[in-house]
Amino acid sequence: MDDLQALGAESTTSDHGPDRLTTIKVIGAAGDHDGPLLRQLLLPMHPADVAELLAHAPRETARTIFTLVGDDLDAEVYAELEDELRELALEYIPASKLAQKLDDLDTDDAAAIVAELDDEDRAEVLAAASADVRVAVEGALSFEEETAGRLMQREFVAAPQHWDVGQTIDFMRKTGEDLPDLFFDIYVVNPAMKPIGAIPVSKLMRARRTVLLEDLMETPEIIVEPETDQEVVAHAFQKYHLISAPVVDRSGRLTGMITVDDIVRVIQDENEEDLLALAGVRDASAGDTVWSSVRSRLPWLVINLATALVASFLISKFEASIEKIVALAIMMPIVASMGGNAGTQTVAVAVRALAARELNAANSVRIIFREVVTGIVNGAFFALLLSSVALIWFQSTLLSLTIALAILLNLSMAGLAGILIPLALKRLGQDPAVSSGVLVTFVTDMVGFVAFLGLATLIIL
Amino acid sequence: MDDLQALGAESTTSDHGPDRLTTIKVIGAAGDHDGPLLRQLLLPMHPADVAELLAHAPRETARTIFTLVGDDLDAEVYAELEDELRELALEYIPASKLAQKLDDLDTDDAAAIVAELDDEDRAEVLAAASADVRVAVEGALSFEEETAGRLMQREFVAAPQHWDVGQTIDFMRKTGEDLPDLFFDIYVVNPAMKPIGAIPVSKLMRARRTVLLEDLMETPEIIVEPETDQEVVAHAFQKYHLISAPVVDRSGRLTGMITVDDIVRVIQDENEEDLLALAGVRDASAGDTVWSSVRSRLPWLVINLATALVASFLISKFEASIEKIVALAIMMPIVASMGGNAGTQTVAVAVRALAARELNAANSVRIIFREVVTGIVNGAFFALLLSSVALIWFQSTLLSLTIALAILLNLSMAGLAGILIPLALKRLGQDPAVSSGVLVTFVTDMVGFVAFLGLATLIIL
Repeated sequence: MDDLQALGAESTTSDHGPDRLTTIKVIGAAGDHDGPLLRQLLLPMHPADVAELLAHAPRETARTIFTLVGDDLDAEVYAELEDELRELALEYIPASKLAQKLDDLDTDDAAAIVAELDDEDRAEVLAAASADVRVAVEGALSFEEETAGRLMQREFVAAPQHWDVGQTIDFMRKTGEDLPDLFFDIYVVNPAMKPIGAIPVSKLMRARRTVLLEDLMETPEIIVEPETDQEVVAHAFQKYHLISAPVVDRSGRLTGMITVDDIVRVIQDENEEDLLALAGVRDASAGDTVWSSVRSRLPWLVINLATALVASFLISKFEASIEKIVALAIMMPIVASMGGNAGTQTVAVAVRALAARELNAANSVRIIFREVVTGIVNGAFFALLLSSVALIWFQSTLLSLTIALAILLNLSMAGLAGILIPLALKRLGQDPAVSSGVLVTFVTDMVGFVAFLGLATLIIL
Repeated sequence: MDDLQALGAESTTSDHGPDRLTTIKVIGAAGDHDGPLLRQLLLPMHPADVAELLAHAPRETARTIFTLVGDDLDAEVYAELEDELRELALEYIPASKLAQKLDDLDTDDAAAIVAELDDEDRAEVLAAASADVRVAVEGALSFEEETAGRLMQREFVAAPQHWDVGQTIDFMRKTGEDLPDLFFDIYVVNPAMKPIGAIPVSKLMRARRTVLLEDLMETPEIIVEPETDQEVVAHAFQKYHLISAPVVDRSGRLTGMITVDDIVRVIQDENEEDLLALAGVRDASAGDTVWSSVRSRLPWLVINLATALVASFLISKFEASIEKIVALAIMMPIVASMGGNAGTQTVAVAVRALAARELNAANSVRIIFREVVTGIVNGAFFALLLSSVALIWFQSTLLSLTIALAILLNLSMAGLAGILIPLALKRLGQDPAVSSGVLVTFVTDMVGFVAFLGLATLIIL
């Protein structure tokens, strides 16, 4: 591959990103406050690599870079930065300079930057921005977070249905400036500006100049309304393998487009959110401080403490039983822990299926049934296994019977609660990833301790 | 939006997918074994919608559809089907028919279908396929699963560096058939067929015909080797907002391209894998039966049982202490549960950061430090809180002191183990999502029970 790199390919897949040597040089140049060298090193780099280098470099280096060459960095660099670093950048770069940079970005990226600013910075930047940017950004911000309106760019290519391929290509050659930098489909509109077709650019380019757009276009797979949740849009992109999709306003007029690169970010973000939420973490990034980490984890631990205290309170009701048979104290964590784990498994399966839109009204009965039966089967297996262990360990048939019944009951409950709780939260309009885990663990803890200690009290004592 | 739908737009974003009425009609037509009606209903639908309908319909409906109209379904329908349904389809459609359909697909999709067949079906289908398909599919299957080689399609557009825009467009107009259906970038190659540049189609189309490709092209952000792990490729696509990327063979010659729609699937799959793995589930889909659900969850529950039994064994060593102070049995689940949850939080944060390539050699020391300090801070907070609860509940300063120390120790250990275990697994080449959770919970269970009961024995007794 040396040859390729000599020819200028930035990197092969296995080692993409700013290379170590460049990073060291940049940190050195920042240490020397060598503006020209920083410019020489950073300006040829891909904006995403500059952003990554800034994220990984010491904060001091980032500060120096913003101070010395912040004005010269590509607008895209700011679009790629994490929020935290962008805030830092704003301390060193005047709002007016940032506002100028917004002009170079597609409106969705400009809006994303402005959305993350605090109110004061936002007002300052918008006041200094061009009218075009201001209108576009304010338009985007008028939609809720995580809706299609926030992902949409106002730059798109549309052509009337009666045009032919030649006219369309000539129009695009002439218009130049006002078109988006990159586009993948052109939209065919009727006289009311409603999108009635889409043509991939590669198809347009290969068609004969006299072919009518009407004869070349296909009906768009989806037409997006800006109020739609970004997850719904992302699902449609995935399902239909879309590269771009048209967005319409209330009257059905074409007002923007959404491109797949933004959807890739949405898919990644939504997945990360679910993964963290299931583990009880509110938010996480590599740039987090101790303080932000504590804040994002404490709430769930507090809730967990509350449920653990309820469990302890219930255990304390069986104090007399435990005093008589210490084996109960020894075995009870097993019943609760197995139930908790089985419940978490079911919740993960349910959250994944809901996110992938595989779990719906049509098949929910079948899937609830499957989860409960899975719980019963697993429960029966571990009832056998664990009662044998208990029999050998404590030589007590009654204890063995108790633990068998308790584990069968708890694993069945884990299946039932593990599927019903996420479904119920979803139906209530809540995010099932956020609180299903704690609710299900609460159920399996309660059932685990109470079933085991209660059955023991009934059967053995 | 009625207007739009009247004009033929299949759906708005909020209700994309096969509509309920069509689904009911299809199920009815299948019940009547009405082949012509099925054809009339299914053939105009998007292949992804047909696949979704088949996935949600009763198995009997799917069987009838494959029998009556399987030959007429678009090849893309088979590319969209879940493995399970594709196997079902093969029972009703001769291998020779399926082989013909592969000709209509891009090679990556054809390879994905063949890869999922069992050995016998695979041999049969490949024997009946055209030479082109056979070579392409066998080429793709020669690469490991989850590598770039499996995602790559052999159809791409390349042009020599000395061509101008006009020549290139004319070439594409003439070649037609052999080009991929859709493409987003054309690659510029040197005489040795090495990709030295890429030009987005939208840029090519707008350039004047006399412009040289050399002057229009940009260095490709990445050049993919087919052995590369698909996660690495996906990360590069995300980072650089790529729509397609060139793939080269060992000698650096252009042999294929990877497009973003496949990357979207990879990102989704990898994320789902991580989410399920963290919860101890091996694999899941809406089509799972009870039996496949049990199999995908039992292994982790068995491991969990083993660790729970070790914990019980350790608890049993403190039988004498528990007999004297039943409050120990009441409080000990709290210490273990808090530790387990804090550990799981840290593991989720670490797995996310590793997957997003945010956690690396450069910042791992800082992040380990952050996690440990976060553990200590959370530990101190809950030590205070829980010791107050214990003091009020059991009126014992010593018990209160014991629980404070135990929780501080366990939450600190949760931070340390929660970050070190995923990092160690990653370094050992293991998937940190798969076993970090169980290992960390094992540590926090042990530390939780032993620290609490041990300290209690030392301090109180």
